[in-house]
Amino acid sequence: MMKAKVLVTPKQGILDPQGVAVQHAMSQLGMSCVTEARVGKVIELTFTGENEQKTREKLDQLCQELLSNPVVEDYHILWEGKTA
Amino acid sequence: MMKAKVLVTPKQGILDPQGVAVQHAMSQLGMSCVTEARVGKVIELTFTGENEQKTREKLDQLCQELLSNPVVEDYHILWEGKTA
Repeated sequence: MMKAKVLVTPKQGILDPQGVAVQHAMSQLGMSCVTEARVGKVIELTFTGENEQKTREKLDQLCQELLSNPVVEDYHILWEGKTA
Repeated sequence: MMKAKVLVTPKQGILDPQGVAVQHAMSQLGMSCVTEARVGKVIELTFTGENEQKTREKLDQLCQELLSNPVVEDYHILWEGKTA
């Protein structure tokens, strides 16, 4: 069993109204030290299977085709290694 | 300047229809090895200020009050340290 987290965030320079709203709300609640907030998605995945290299390559492909929109979003995969 | 990522994910046992949809879509696109997918939010934050301890405590408080719903969601803070 392997686990991975895919972080999908708006690219730098892309307007992120939800992030602006979070920044304002945090400022109003006493955290005026927050200079920027950007809101994205996290997808936590659990895999079975032995072929780790193939899984990594396929996940990278699906990140581009399914999980993120490469025009406006960046993605980053955090591998958590085998847990069993 | 400090940076942190807040990961907000549905608690174990809480129904996550978006995660089920992602799992099915990945399976159809050739990754049938995905046994579970859970979809949450990531909030990327940039801070100014010197008092790191206070910032950490305050962020922890706002995670509970603003950024997550503690009834159905877990949160996890990834600190990225000072970058400048």
